[in-house]
Amino acid sequence: FDSKLPSTGTTIFTQMSELAAKHQAINLSQGFPDFDGPSELLSRVDHYIQQGANQYAPMTGVPSLRQAISTKLARCYDYQANADTDITVTSGATEALFATISAFVRPGDEVIVFDPAYDSYDPAIRLNGGTPVHIALLPPSFAIDWQTVANAITPNTKAIIVNSPHNPTGTVFSANDLEALYSIADQHDLLVLSDEVYEHIVFEGAEHQSVLRHKELAKRSVVVSSFGKTYHTTGWKIGYCVASAQLMAEVRKVHQYLTFSTSTPMQLALADFLNAHPEHDEVLPSFYQQKRDFFNKAMSESRFTFTPSPGTYFQLMDYSAIKDVPDTEFALWLIEAAGVAAIPISVFYQTPPEDMRLVRFCFAKQASTLTAATQNLTTL
Amino acid sequence: FDSKLPSTGTTIFTQMSELAAKHQAINLSQGFPDFDGPSELLSRVDHYIQQGANQYAPMTGVPSLRQAISTKLARCYDYQANADTDITVTSGATEALFATISAFVRPGDEVIVFDPAYDSYDPAIRLNGGTPVHIALLPPSFAIDWQTVANAITPNTKAIIVNSPHNPTGTVFSANDLEALYSIADQHDLLVLSDEVYEHIVFEGAEHQSVLRHKELAKRSVVVSSFGKTYHTTGWKIGYCVASAQLMAEVRKVHQYLTFSTSTPMQLALADFLNAHPEHDEVLPSFYQQKRDFFNKAMSESRFTFTPSPGTYFQLMDYSAIKDVPDTEFALWLIEAAGVAAIPISVFYQTPPEDMRLVRFCFAKQASTLTAATQNLTTL
Ligand SMILES: CSCCC(=O)C(=O)O
Ligand SMILES: CSCCC(=O)C(=O)O
Repeated sequence: FDSKLPSTGTTIFTQMSELAAKHQAINLSQGFPDFDGPSELLSRVDHYIQQGANQYAPMTGVPSLRQAISTKLARCYDYQANADTDITVTSGATEALFATISAFVRPGDEVIVFDPAYDSYDPAIRLNGGTPVHIALLPPSFAIDWQTVANAITPNTKAIIVNSPHNPTGTVFSANDLEALYSIADQHDLLVLSDEVYEHIVFEGAEHQSVLRHKELAKRSVVVSSFGKTYHTTGWKIGYCVASAQLMAEVRKVHQYLTFSTSTPMQLALADFLNAHPEHDEVLPSFYQQKRDFFNKAMSESRFTFTPSPGTYFQLMDYSAIKDVPDTEFALWLIEAAGVAAIPISVFYQTPPEDMRLVRFCFAKQASTLTAATQNLTTL
Repeated sequence: FDSKLPSTGTTIFTQMSELAAKHQAINLSQGFPDFDGPSELLSRVDHYIQQGANQYAPMTGVPSLRQAISTKLARCYDYQANADTDITVTSGATEALFATISAFVRPGDEVIVFDPAYDSYDPAIRLNGGTPVHIALLPPSFAIDWQTVANAITPNTKAIIVNSPHNPTGTVFSANDLEALYSIADQHDLLVLSDEVYEHIVFEGAEHQSVLRHKELAKRSVVVSSFGKTYHTTGWKIGYCVASAQLMAEVRKVHQYLTFSTSTPMQLALADFLNAHPEHDEVLPSFYQQKRDFFNKAMSESRFTFTPSPGTYFQLMDYSAIKDVPDTEFALWLIEAAGVAAIPISVFYQTPPEDMRLVRFCFAKQASTLTAATQNLTTL
């Protein structure tokens, strides 16, 4: 049976995490924390398991969690979401992305994707018969040139996928970006799929420019987020999406056949924690900024060069002073030479810019991990 | 934005469970137990959560669980599966079905589906541009007429989806069914997608005829199963699929972008339990046969008529002696008249046979629940 994704291999995250394990390298590649979430959250899962909350959750998510999300959206973005119709809990943000793309992208549709991009967008579009239209963002700023986007629109353009704070570059949207996005989406009747899984990880006091802040833009958008990133529980695989009732009805049609529902006791535990501790997401920026600054301070002693990441728990580093080789080659060398795993960012491009000399480090790590890693990295 | 699934509504399971809750009816509709899994399994999740196993599992599943599945397949079906390449843990069996269909079904492909059928097959095929070719199985036997299947094959036939033990009818494959399936699949080079989530729930000492028992058939098959059904944890949403390394590579290409991975601590808990208690699945047939017999004995006092279900935790009942109305109407009436929710089986057909007077009851319930339900049902 022929492959529908002939050029698809194993994700870079799997590859690098496996290599890191094999070489006992410090794994700053795949994005996940090496510390735990709040103990009150962690122990709450067992509470519900022991209570017998072990059967199917409602397809849309447990009501208390949808309600807690709605409350949070009002608090953070002044957005009124109906917990019954506008919010769906999914098996991670990845499922929400796939369900949304499957719900709306048809054969012949074009979908605009900005490179570097999280690696699931492109194959999800292709599997649905759509054509990803890749627009490359270039270092050092990785800013979106909205005129280039306008020029890329055709009668077949159906949707545009945005991601702020941006993985892997850390760049964040400005209010102007939201306006420009709205103007193009409105003019061409585009669906906007907004991947905001790092919504609570923005630095220097900046506000996350959620698509939900822009009420008109929000009407044509599906916004995706993740509890894994915010509560240090990437392995629980619980995410959600938010949209108008009309758009959400279509996403749910797919979600119900894709996974139907997700872990009941973990959803209930998250609901309790969100309600009890809304302040958790409010301290996340300073929590991660401290890690970023700690990592960057140590790295300023190295031959890597960088500008501090404005958001996410990723930091790009330019290694051109160390070795003049393509980034994948450098990342493989780095595992052996420094015992540190990183992600080469060219893998997030359809057509990587030539001579780009950047790798991505994940700084969602304990101080001891970051110290050990930077000790090795500064010897290069 | 137009719907890609215009005729799709909310699944019958969601509808009936919501109605049951609203009317405080006894819910024998959606298939899930109203009792818990083994306490050793339940408490093991917290063990791993406290150990810090809260970050991404490997995309393919945690190694100990894949190994435990491999051991189980050797024990139950004398099937040698390579834990690294032939087994993938998924976010429920539903995800495994969707990933497999997405990995292989292209626009123009026809996929044979037997009605009544679990409701996710058809939309998953359509979302991938395929055409579901529905073959109706008819009461009372609901047996597959393989000559009808042979006649339905066209040059576009790509795959065939089978399900034994069968939801909602409870029928099970014979060794002859496996042979007939193999002969057709081999002759026409078809992929076989075998939904075996009720593999351990077969009665009267019968053996489950897994596709994996037939070594040649297994080579062109993806076999899907579920821990939810076997360990009474439907709300954990952990399933898996098994195939040759070559087929599995394609399923994984989709799985990695669909959900990437599933709950780490729950996978680890399941692995420990499978290893410590292989006997659990061996006592499941008698455990559920007792429930079936208990339910049926009480129902023999009612005006429902039936033949005992050979497998699954579902029992079809003919209500024609009670009320001569279509089954959906009967199911709605039943909630009000008897305070019991059941599933009308016409919803599992593309073209329901006329005058079918059958509803499905789930007997995966405590004796007290079954007693309360049958007390009401016998008054009708
Ligand atoms: C699903 S694994 C990817 C984790 C992640 O978001 C990243 O490392 O970019
Ligand atoms: C995913 S909800 C469906 C449960 C089930 O398998 C059934 O009731 O048939």
